[in-house]
Amino acid sequence: MGELGLIFMNELKQILPSDRISDNATILEQHSTDESYHAPALPNTVVFPKTTTEVSRVVKLAAKVNVPVVSFGLGTSLEGSVIPYQGGIMIDFSLMNQVLEVRPDDFLVKVQPGVTRKQLEKELKTYGLFFSVDPGADATLGGMAATNASGTTSVKYGVMRDQVRDLQVVLADGSVIHTGNMAAKSSSGLHLNGLFIGSEGTLGCFTELTLKVHGIPEKVVAGRAAFTTLDNAVEAVIHILQAGIPVARVELVDAPSIKQINLFSDTYYLEVPTIFIEFHGNEAGLQEDVDFTTEILQEHQCQDLAFEANTAGRNQLWEARHQTAYAFLHHYPGKKQMVTDVCVPISQLANAIKHGRDAVEASALPGGIVGHVGDGNYHILMMIDPQNPEDIAKANEVNEQIVSYALSCGGTCTGEHGVGVGKAKYQLAEHGAAFEVMKRIKDSLDPQHIFNPGKIFALTD
Amino acid sequence: MGELGLIFMNELKQILPSDRISDNATILEQHSTDESYHAPALPNTVVFPKTTTEVSRVVKLAAKVNVPVVSFGLGTSLEGSVIPYQGGIMIDFSLMNQVLEVRPDDFLVKVQPGVTRKQLEKELKTYGLFFSVDPGADATLGGMAATNASGTTSVKYGVMRDQVRDLQVVLADGSVIHTGNMAAKSSSGLHLNGLFIGSEGTLGCFTELTLKVHGIPEKVVAGRAAFTTLDNAVEAVIHILQAGIPVARVELVDAPSIKQINLFSDTYYLEVPTIFIEFHGNEAGLQEDVDFTTEILQEHQCQDLAFEANTAGRNQLWEARHQTAYAFLHHYPGKKQMVTDVCVPISQLANAIKHGRDAVEASALPGGIVGHVGDGNYHILMMIDPQNPEDIAKANEVNEQIVSYALSCGGTCTGEHGVGVGKAKYQLAEHGAAFEVMKRIKDSLDPQHIFNPGKIFALTD
Repeated sequence: MGELGLIFMNELKQILPSDRISDNATILEQHSTDESYHAPALPNTVVFPKTTTEVSRVVKLAAKVNVPVVSFGLGTSLEGSVIPYQGGIMIDFSLMNQVLEVRPDDFLVKVQPGVTRKQLEKELKTYGLFFSVDPGADATLGGMAATNASGTTSVKYGVMRDQVRDLQVVLADGSVIHTGNMAAKSSSGLHLNGLFIGSEGTLGCFTELTLKVHGIPEKVVAGRAAFTTLDNAVEAVIHILQAGIPVARVELVDAPSIKQINLFSDTYYLEVPTIFIEFHGNEAGLQEDVDFTTEILQEHQCQDLAFEANTAGRNQLWEARHQTAYAFLHHYPGKKQMVTDVCVPISQLANAIKHGRDAVEASALPGGIVGHVGDGNYHILMMIDPQNPEDIAKANEVNEQIVSYALSCGGTCTGEHGVGVGKAKYQLAEHGAAFEVMKRIKDSLDPQHIFNPGKIFALTD
Repeated sequence: MGELGLIFMNELKQILPSDRISDNATILEQHSTDESYHAPALPNTVVFPKTTTEVSRVVKLAAKVNVPVVSFGLGTSLEGSVIPYQGGIMIDFSLMNQVLEVRPDDFLVKVQPGVTRKQLEKELKTYGLFFSVDPGADATLGGMAATNASGTTSVKYGVMRDQVRDLQVVLADGSVIHTGNMAAKSSSGLHLNGLFIGSEGTLGCFTELTLKVHGIPEKVVAGRAAFTTLDNAVEAVIHILQAGIPVARVELVDAPSIKQINLFSDTYYLEVPTIFIEFHGNEAGLQEDVDFTTEILQEHQCQDLAFEANTAGRNQLWEARHQTAYAFLHHYPGKKQMVTDVCVPISQLANAIKHGRDAVEASALPGGIVGHVGDGNYHILMMIDPQNPEDIAKANEVNEQIVSYALSCGGTCTGEHGVGVGKAKYQLAEHGAAFEVMKRIKDSLDPQHIFNPGKIFALTD
């Protein structure tokens, strides 16, 4: 029951049955952490609502007594976005996990926030549809919307923000709003959809999402291209993008990461800088794209090239790519990962990656570089001992250098992971006077700062 | 000098030279109206700044004495978005009309708000690039961002909001912010880009825009398909979309509109419901798309089908389509147009258009139906005598029926024209409790409501 007090807990029990309110030590601990290196912190209590009305009543109660409210999906954040550093109530959305409606004719699906990406994928398959955002982790859709997640396919289909037509949101006063509608476009009123997506639980709790889905493409071809140098690989990607070839995914994986993938997965890839690439389209158009791409790859000294048109081959390739982070974690038991996440304009990508590689090599921390290079977004993964202040200091130093570099060339400190606690310190540098505007909006919608305090907006802001 | 007072005008002259401040009757009148049926209203004075600093100083002065500030591009609004019903200062951006930077490697361009769409098109052509948003009118980019304009190509490339990477905005206190950056994606902070796009001058003045541009496609094919009935035409479009064919544009034009096009343009199209369609891609892929589309069109009793792969033929086709509104205006001298602009989920489109057609026929107002049907967005154009209250009442009645229908099936009252004054009355019905959130954001960013008062938010709100 922690510090929430008996009266509070009694009121909470008026809203939810006791078996959906927990202060069991194991439950609290499960909700104290994510997949990042950030220090854990326990919530006071975890609740498991089943309806929007229950969420609204919980929030109203929390506001009445000024207790923090943190929304929790599956805890796959890489920036401590859900760690409840102020304690309070954790709302776990795992029981709100229904796909409510599939509207194949409208290419829309309505889901509860606890539905996971893979669960949705399975459901949509029978309709010949797919949801395009694929961050690797089997995150919840609510969490993905909260951080504006993206991943390998955003170069073609866009990020989470591009897929959301409507959110049902519980606000700080317990009122329930819809931020959009089911139309493909709208110029009506202020655009709340975009504002709430990526707000990391600081403006409200998402209780329903209406998402755009896509028809499964007629034909998909994926390929793997191995290079002698990282520079050649990056420059090949830039050349492909500039040629206007509509790639669906294009990923860079450096040699140390390929090595970890081979150790962890059932693969025997050449341990050199590699591009993973995929095309979606009709058969004839795609063949032209593949041919043109092959030419460009060869111009950039690609030493090995293999295309896979069958599903099994493609799945193995992407599975391997997505396992990179887990491969590193597996190889360094007890260590945690710090992952940088800057995104830069494409013209700056080659230099930014060179700069990042030099920074991480100078730190001597083990790690690798992977990235959604088609968007100018790349990750430097560093393995650190979270108990070792020296490791954390080194990784912080690398992160800071990389963020400074990205900001200096017109980029952002986080392309897809969100700010959480790890990047709150860069907000003022990145947004300047606009950060004040963000704070005014936060204040106007959550005057008591009950929602996810300390995230995006540091506690001192 | 109107009601602004001598002291105010003297202070204004400290900011701008006299030849860039005007209360000349003709200038005021030019800034009193737009392309809609809405009644004109004069500003007190019009200023022509050349720099962001000048805009900032004008806004600061206006805030000090609580005078309205309205931003003006070219006055192509169809909803009275720029008509200064409260008088005040009109900021005309025509002298801020420079393309500041083209970054072909990043597919980005930085422009001042007074640059027009066609001016940008011309500038980009030499780089092999194009800007995708084409609302028909040669509007300014600042105005297009303010209303979240879209048009014929949004079915493939998205709306204005999807093209904006960054805005420089002067806020109500004169401070200058950037709402974004040059990276392709970001999860950093609250998403101000999306919020400011479509805010119709109610949150600030845009003084610089960084926009996404695209490579000119390798191959473009456009076609015209004539149908015996409107229903067949609409159903053919829905079928094409559902087949997942990546159309770049797909427009519906009804028989009365084709008739006006033929009268106005140098065309001899069959005067029947017609689909204008376009594909962008590589040669082989495009041929497959055209073949598949042809099959579908024929299944829906298309009676005449012509594809144009050469530029001249395509240009004539789109020029004709874009002239529809002007063709009507030309045919009914002295009349003005009221244009509905709802957008509905695709599954509701056929019934919504039937309902709309019945409503306009019952009103006996002359007009036609055209629309960006690939997005579920369509316009019913009604010609009215702005001096005749009966005409206005009839058109209002039709508009109201059409908006109610759209809202009842999950749509929006405006797909691309914006709220202006004409659709302010539908905001509460459309957004419900979310409208309160929009008002709180407006209050927090513009507490005195100096920016474009009465737009989106009615004066009583």
